[in-house]
Amino acid sequence: MTPKIASFLAEQAPATPCLVVDVDQVELRYCELEAALPLSRIYYAVKANPATPILQRLVSLGSCFDAASWEEIEMCLQAGADASAISFGNTIKKVSAIRSAFAAGVTMFAFDSDEELDKLARHAPGARVYCRLLVENQGAEWPLSRKFGTSVEHARALMLRAQALGLDPYGLSFHVGSQQTDTGAYEAAIGRAAMLFTDLQAAGLDIRMVNLGGGFPTRYREDVPTIDRFADAIGRAMTRHFGNAIPEMIVEPGRFIVGDAGVVSAEVVLVSRRGLPNGAQDGKRWVYLDVGRFGGLAETEGESIKYQIRTPHDGSATGPVALAGPTCDGADILYERADYRLPLDLACGERVELLSTGAYVSTYCSTRFNGFAPIHEHYI
Amino acid sequence: MTPKIASFLAEQAPATPCLVVDVDQVELRYCELEAALPLSRIYYAVKANPATPILQRLVSLGSCFDAASWEEIEMCLQAGADASAISFGNTIKKVSAIRSAFAAGVTMFAFDSDEELDKLARHAPGARVYCRLLVENQGAEWPLSRKFGTSVEHARALMLRAQALGLDPYGLSFHVGSQQTDTGAYEAAIGRAAMLFTDLQAAGLDIRMVNLGGGFPTRYREDVPTIDRFADAIGRAMTRHFGNAIPEMIVEPGRFIVGDAGVVSAEVVLVSRRGLPNGAQDGKRWVYLDVGRFGGLAETEGESIKYQIRTPHDGSATGPVALAGPTCDGADILYERADYRLPLDLACGERVELLSTGAYVSTYCSTRFNGFAPIHEHYI
Repeated sequence: MTPKIASFLAEQAPATPCLVVDVDQVELRYCELEAALPLSRIYYAVKANPATPILQRLVSLGSCFDAASWEEIEMCLQAGADASAISFGNTIKKVSAIRSAFAAGVTMFAFDSDEELDKLARHAPGARVYCRLLVENQGAEWPLSRKFGTSVEHARALMLRAQALGLDPYGLSFHVGSQQTDTGAYEAAIGRAAMLFTDLQAAGLDIRMVNLGGGFPTRYREDVPTIDRFADAIGRAMTRHFGNAIPEMIVEPGRFIVGDAGVVSAEVVLVSRRGLPNGAQDGKRWVYLDVGRFGGLAETEGESIKYQIRTPHDGSATGPVALAGPTCDGADILYERADYRLPLDLACGERVELLSTGAYVSTYCSTRFNGFAPIHEHYI
Repeated sequence: MTPKIASFLAEQAPATPCLVVDVDQVELRYCELEAALPLSRIYYAVKANPATPILQRLVSLGSCFDAASWEEIEMCLQAGADASAISFGNTIKKVSAIRSAFAAGVTMFAFDSDEELDKLARHAPGARVYCRLLVENQGAEWPLSRKFGTSVEHARALMLRAQALGLDPYGLSFHVGSQQTDTGAYEAAIGRAAMLFTDLQAAGLDIRMVNLGGGFPTRYREDVPTIDRFADAIGRAMTRHFGNAIPEMIVEPGRFIVGDAGVVSAEVVLVSRRGLPNGAQDGKRWVYLDVGRFGGLAETEGESIKYQIRTPHDGSATGPVALAGPTCDGADILYERADYRLPLDLACGERVELLSTGAYVSTYCSTRFNGFAPIHEHYI
């Protein structure tokens, strides 16, 4: 938690649950990444947190933007971004969204299928397109599954078709999975992309860009490798595979830029010890917060992302807890198996903070599940 | 899909994704349940769908309401419900919510822990309280886990404490899990509750209510037992355990009342066949809709709830598909393993309907994940 957030919470005691984001911290991380990867252009993954103050700050720093929808493109434009600095990075796009984006001046689009390519050729003629490869997501705490990307063989055919359809076969992309903690994942993926890249160049395509995706991790409960270690691994792999003909490089960080800039302040609604079906008392206390999986903490699904939690009693004796949200939904459990311990003195009505919650919280939040309003947001 | 919804979709072609609910169908299900369980009072589980037209219709039918939050209580009051017809059924309540509810005239509260009991004694003095038992959720497609309810032994101690604290020890509740397809689950739970009920009466408590919870299923892909079969099982179990001294009975249906009154109309954004990492072509088509897990279809998590899907090509040749939502999130997959098949002719831009989506869709919907606006809602 940054000193600015700590002061804000202490002085304002804003209504809970709320998300407080320190926009200076966003800038710090952006500059850190820029310094670590000076050859890469940064396309901020807007979906991580599309709040206007964040977008405006990033515009002022010269960032580009990776948008998932026409609506996100509009947000970027409204925040002052130039259309030429926006990539429409979703491989699943409505025709209407492609047309709106193209009309607004966006000329860079992702795809991974024949049908999407046909849509782009028709509704964004001549646009720069890049094909997403399917790569391993091992090591990622929020992997991206089989939903996106295609094989090297298929991508090759697609890129050749892109050229034939009058599109600009700009490059290749991949995504090693979100909250990726293994630098080796980037090296393996770069090797895969490089092979195809070289092959397509040999086939006469003016291919000139590699998009390394995002996935750079934020520190939650566990230490993660520094961004310099990722940069080193990427730099080595690019040199190994491309020699001194390194193509344009793009990265699409989201979590890394905004994750540790945010803190969720929540209230303890109930601390209970209840009986088990066999009559014994449950050894675990259940701590219920006024924010849960449907109030923004969606990435606790499967206990994937494990946020650090601060309480007013830190340093005193602790005991094991299960943590859950305030709704009547049995699935609204944050952590039951992840060995969380909290102070024994923690009581109903007290405030706790969930750290590094700047990414993927405000937008996942449900509109009004169980009647609860969306999380309040403060950008300071 | 009711004829009214079919006409609405055909004539209005409303923008997708949207949820269309036939409020007459809500009334039909309410009356059906009332006829099947004439001895039970119906407390509609507001969280299933809190839309004003639904609440107003149910008020006009004499329904009571099970609310999960102060905000849901406010919605009921605004729809014309009497405070005396509202149960604050969440066992996890902020003190401020208890105070607001009590001040508004709500006098019926659930609990399952000592701390919650203390809060009720202090902030809702004299209120009718009922204790939630932990029971088996086997047979439920959306089970409720260990988050709620306590053991018979603990509940006994809690009910005696409730009396000692000046509260009215009104009854016991349980919940067999949502979309419960096994009538035996109710019988087992009633047996468990009856034992404690009788014991507490013998101990001198004026206990007089059993709350059977909800869980009555909606038909999705598979047939489910009729409501009459559940009513028979419940009636038999109540008679077996309570003889001719049957207590007040309460049910809290949500899904059963509104589930099959709703249809989600969605657009196919992309149909793709992509390559596998080994270079082979994926045998499955991927069909991407403009609605997914974060646009309201949250209950497809783990492929739990399997909606029926209608397409314009029904009746023609089909093939296996994976179904996914429109966001850049790898977790936004509806069905990958659940053996869905859709017509081979299905194409981008066409509309499909997801049936029986009246419950637990509009409220789970995220505020703006990936920039997408919440699902449009039409109550007709």
